[in-house]
Amino acid sequence: MRQRLSVETYAKGVLAGDRTTLSRAITIIESNLPEDRTLASEILKQILPHTSNALRVGITGVPGVGKSTFIEAFGTYLTSLGKRVAVLAVDPSSKQSGGSILGDKTRMETLARNPNAYIRPTPTNLSLGGVARHTREAILLCEAAGYDMILVETVGVGQSETLVKGMTDFFLLLMLAGAGDELQGIKKGIMEMVDAIAVNKADHGNEQAVAKAVAEYRQALHLLPENPSKIAVQVVPCSAMDGTGMETIWNIISNYYAQTSANGYLQENRRLQRVDWLREQIRHSLEDQFYANELVRKHIASADEAVRYGEKLPGEAAAELINLFLSNSAKS
Amino acid sequence: MRQRLSVETYAKGVLAGDRTTLSRAITIIESNLPEDRTLASEILKQILPHTSNALRVGITGVPGVGKSTFIEAFGTYLTSLGKRVAVLAVDPSSKQSGGSILGDKTRMETLARNPNAYIRPTPTNLSLGGVARHTREAILLCEAAGYDMILVETVGVGQSETLVKGMTDFFLLLMLAGAGDELQGIKKGIMEMVDAIAVNKADHGNEQAVAKAVAEYRQALHLLPENPSKIAVQVVPCSAMDGTGMETIWNIISNYYAQTSANGYLQENRRLQRVDWLREQIRHSLEDQFYANELVRKHIASADEAVRYGEKLPGEAAAELINLFLSNSAKS
Repeated sequence: MRQRLSVETYAKGVLAGDRTTLSRAITIIESNLPEDRTLASEILKQILPHTSNALRVGITGVPGVGKSTFIEAFGTYLTSLGKRVAVLAVDPSSKQSGGSILGDKTRMETLARNPNAYIRPTPTNLSLGGVARHTREAILLCEAAGYDMILVETVGVGQSETLVKGMTDFFLLLMLAGAGDELQGIKKGIMEMVDAIAVNKADHGNEQAVAKAVAEYRQALHLLPENPSKIAVQVVPCSAMDGTGMETIWNIISNYYAQTSANGYLQENRRLQRVDWLREQIRHSLEDQFYANELVRKHIASADEAVRYGEKLPGEAAAELINLFLSNSAKS
Repeated sequence: MRQRLSVETYAKGVLAGDRTTLSRAITIIESNLPEDRTLASEILKQILPHTSNALRVGITGVPGVGKSTFIEAFGTYLTSLGKRVAVLAVDPSSKQSGGSILGDKTRMETLARNPNAYIRPTPTNLSLGGVARHTREAILLCEAAGYDMILVETVGVGQSETLVKGMTDFFLLLMLAGAGDELQGIKKGIMEMVDAIAVNKADHGNEQAVAKAVAEYRQALHLLPENPSKIAVQVVPCSAMDGTGMETIWNIISNYYAQTSANGYLQENRRLQRVDWLREQIRHSLEDQFYANELVRKHIASADEAVRYGEKLPGEAAAELINLFLSNSAKS
């Protein structure tokens, strides 16, 4: 058991922008131990009034598109403007790939050494729902610590985009030119969620192919319904290698932020995101308490067996277990 | 309020294969009224020992691929072999498209008039989770009524395939030749779930294009991991219009059924599906009871408001509401 500090020590350290305390606080919100959950909840309560001041940007793209290099280049550019940049990751596939996508910090060497940047690896061994909750809470902690640009990286597979879309203000898709069917296969669902597309690797003689891809994606976007923000989705070339396009992308994002702040879309979107978060939290907490319940734990194996062999209907078994849960929770 | 019969009347009628009683029983399982849920549960309990004898086949494909015409042709072919065929549908998009995909029974005129076929339109106004539960229960009722081939139709979008995959033994994907990017865009995720692919509309001079597509899909399948059943995924041409390929498809399915029954995969897969169903049922029942709870209903609006405006954290609000729920459930 690691030693824990007091709620006030964590809150003060985070609000003072102390990186070590920030890291330790994030470790607590990532913990599933009941006492850590209580502590996490107290810390978050203290820092809550000091949150929501950052731009939250989701960045997605399939493996190989150059997300790390892009975040390194874009993050470094942002710090040159005086921004303080935090990088988080949502990586549900870490179990399969055997490690977190940001676990190897050497992938972002320059940014990791930058005093105005903070990089937090993906927590391992968490479900997608667990990663989502912890990332939302980590965003709040980073905001309280004074980071005004939060970059949330996600791999372009499964449901992780939907989760990241649900916790950010602006969603950027990185694409490649001429990557063929394998890449195209995933783009349709994602293209409907994005606020901008950057076609990466516009360098080393690849500029023409990128320009062609940019034109094609612009064309494809015409077929999609209008973005709910009413702001047209932009498609731009970029090169994470030589820094091309970083200023343009920043201009697109800051322009988006200015417009949606002025017309209230940004605020309304965040309000909806918070209510969605509450609904998710209710679902997960109900299940957590159910499966942790003493009587449920005692009887679930036999319920599983009866259902598994078709002797009992899932509806009946569920009703019985839930009755046990509710009667047992009452007593405790 | 519609009149309800006794549990025994429903169970007897269903077991006797009476179509009117079957339809009325399915109406009850589709109802969300608490008294109907109790009645549904009793009926299902009575018929449970007479279920699980059918082949459950999921059929998916994007709109326009000819699913209805295919089911009409394939279902008619199956009845010619002496099979009794039930057709169900999982259509979460019915709210958007303004109607159920099977609502217009005239789309399957011949099959609908066939005494050995039973077609049940999609229930409307249900969530995806609701449709899933009701379809699983409808499968059991149809099996108890003596149908030995259950065809579950789903549109090729969103998560409905995953649900249908989770309640069937065999998953068939209908494709078209040369349908371009729009169609290809969805195929990768689905192709990993299928047991066979039928390329439709191999008629009217389109045979060459279909043969080419069949070859391409066969090629593409080599890139995917082996099917968990260990039975190679087959790709065949078919024409729902002139009946080409119906016999081949039936041979593939019955061969699959024979092999997986013999090696136990079919049974083990169904056991896993039942336990998954129990987990889903627990999740939905917990949420249903939570949101129906008197104290929760009284306090949720103010919790939503506090969370919406960032005054309270979702974790804290969820914990408070769940405490109310558990204390209130205890008293009742």
